[in-house]
Amino acid sequence: MSSRESWAYLNRVVEGPSRPLQALLTAGRGADEIAHGVRTRASWLGDLAGQTASRYDWERAEEDLAIAESASARLVTPEDDEWPADELAQSFGFAATGRSDHLRSYQSDAVEPHALWVRGAPLSGAVAQSVAVVGTRAVTRYGVEATRQIVSGLAAHQWTVVSGGALGIDTAAHEAALSAGGRTVAIAACGIDRAYPARNATLLDRIADQGCVVTEYPPGVPPQRHRFLTRNRLVAALTRGTIIVEAAWRSGALNTLSWAEGLGRITMAVPGPITGSGSLGCHERIRAGRAQLITGADDVRALLGAAGAMDVGEQYELAFAATPVQGLSRNELRVYDACAADGVTAQDVAAAAGLPLPLTVHLLMDLVNRGLITREGTAWSRREE
Amino acid sequence: MSSRESWAYLNRVVEGPSRPLQALLTAGRGADEIAHGVRTRASWLGDLAGQTASRYDWERAEEDLAIAESASARLVTPEDDEWPADELAQSFGFAATGRSDHLRSYQSDAVEPHALWVRGAPLSGAVAQSVAVVGTRAVTRYGVEATRQIVSGLAAHQWTVVSGGALGIDTAAHEAALSAGGRTVAIAACGIDRAYPARNATLLDRIADQGCVVTEYPPGVPPQRHRFLTRNRLVAALTRGTIIVEAAWRSGALNTLSWAEGLGRITMAVPGPITGSGSLGCHERIRAGRAQLITGADDVRALLGAAGAMDVGEQYELAFAATPVQGLSRNELRVYDACAADGVTAQDVAAAAGLPLPLTVHLLMDLVNRGLITREGTAWSRREE
Repeated sequence: MSSRESWAYLNRVVEGPSRPLQALLTAGRGADEIAHGVRTRASWLGDLAGQTASRYDWERAEEDLAIAESASARLVTPEDDEWPADELAQSFGFAATGRSDHLRSYQSDAVEPHALWVRGAPLSGAVAQSVAVVGTRAVTRYGVEATRQIVSGLAAHQWTVVSGGALGIDTAAHEAALSAGGRTVAIAACGIDRAYPARNATLLDRIADQGCVVTEYPPGVPPQRHRFLTRNRLVAALTRGTIIVEAAWRSGALNTLSWAEGLGRITMAVPGPITGSGSLGCHERIRAGRAQLITGADDVRALLGAAGAMDVGEQYELAFAATPVQGLSRNELRVYDACAADGVTAQDVAAAAGLPLPLTVHLLMDLVNRGLITREGTAWSRREE
Repeated sequence: MSSRESWAYLNRVVEGPSRPLQALLTAGRGADEIAHGVRTRASWLGDLAGQTASRYDWERAEEDLAIAESASARLVTPEDDEWPADELAQSFGFAATGRSDHLRSYQSDAVEPHALWVRGAPLSGAVAQSVAVVGTRAVTRYGVEATRQIVSGLAAHQWTVVSGGALGIDTAAHEAALSAGGRTVAIAACGIDRAYPARNATLLDRIADQGCVVTEYPPGVPPQRHRFLTRNRLVAALTRGTIIVEAAWRSGALNTLSWAEGLGRITMAVPGPITGSGSLGCHERIRAGRAQLITGADDVRALLGAAGAMDVGEQYELAFAATPVQGLSRNELRVYDACAADGVTAQDVAAAAGLPLPLTVHLLMDLVNRGLITREGTAWSRREE
């Protein structure tokens, strides 16, 4: 039996994330050895014995690999070049440090996937420069527009947009990336041969063409609540940061953001109108200091450390440069305001500005040098802005 | 000559804020004495000599007081009961500590007003429990709605809303307070006898009826740029905190917020859509940690330390309580999801959930106790949510 079949067997009988399986792999045992141990109920299985007690006789590796192949998918394991080793090592390495208070409730699940089913482009290349964009299914028009705005900017700078393939914001994110000709990756909570939600079947095909569809679950596995939560950890783990757009108070997107936090990734949230409840979760995370407020793709790039990225603040500083008058000090403004367009004496300016004459004359001359005031004899005039 | 006339004289010949005048008052000299000193160019005037050099012969106290009276206004000085001594002492006391990095550019203007012209209710009572709400003149429908939502909630809890009487957000704030039957205060950048902007003349009358209109400038003084900036310091100084709603990149409202920061008051910003540029300034201040993100009146009350105020987070936690299923751990969810509505055996549940049978039975029984699963003989069924 090939190693790939051992990985497929383990993927079927051990539903990830599994800390006992991870421990055995880390200890240096190979997939073949562990698979054999599970089948024969070896003494060294530890907690993996219990985890596989009700499934160890499910011999479906060959069948699962065949189903995947017929769905144009493949099983990717740590032995493959396209395994996203760096991303996973970084995320779960951080989690292992226990530095994150927010990870406690997820601690038992903060474990690497052991194998992934992939349809489309090589996985490691697809996620090498990627960011997650997730949000509510109950999307508003604002949420869709905000998502499009951010995603198209990210796609234009060769960022892969990763999401969960769900309706609402996830769909908007995938579609915006596709429209912009960018790469996008969907991480599913069900078997690679299933299209969930069914309405997104065509979208998932397009994603596989311009990126890839990924899942931790073997063929045929239905999407269930606990799998969405586990899937969310992969969305966060494979990306440099997670952005939430429109997450209401108990949105599942907040779970993904918590994963990103716990895995040491950058957490970002897009604000929205306070007149609706659609962005409540985003606002709460910003307020609590658990997510950075972002307003555009350049903010995101700057936070993720992209070379040459300029944050939105710097951009707007350039776009909305102060006019010369806006740059004046208060005393300069007093003098400037006290000048009429048709010429007044320095004495009049001093009186109107309430400043001593010598200071007034000094400021007037300075403003002449800066081209804001003109002088003809004793008449000082303001140049219209 | 009465003391009030001395204050009126000083208010006319010394345009506030004046640090030299403040120094003389702090040193214990009275208004009469200082007024006499200015008129006679006394040797002890210090820098006030220069500040009054071009205006000291403006003898308009009687006339100014008469104009104010005919405009149903009065001059309020530190000698009056309605002088907002506590607010001013707290704000400028903080500024004097120099603890604020952000005050540096305003340092020279961080000086108390020496007298205020007031039309309407007694000033100190009106601002005793007050918050400033300011924003752009180029308002959007969203900005008006967000302002109304916050202001009506504040008015309902007896908070006075202070603003600048300008078009846009300021107007929306005053109007929302009036509609809610609340108190509101407008701080003007021109003489008390002038209505600026002219379009708001009726609004200013209504404000004087349900609160008051205040200015640092003597009658007839026109609004000018430097006066808006100086006025902003009073908006911030007289209130416990400042909220900006819709402030674009170079909005004057940001100046008021900077004042609040420099004066040690609470700084707050309302987020908005990122698809427009109207809330850019709000977002920038939140992002920079210079303002707290707020989404409603209760947030504001909680930040300002109102007794019994519950922040929006706590409120939504109550309003959107987790369902029992949302409260389940991942293993509980795995078991719950693995149960069908029509009854399955514990063995089947264990296999579907990928959990050991003893743990599965333990969790099933626990879920029965919590009313989420029912048991009939060996058949376990999920109760529909």
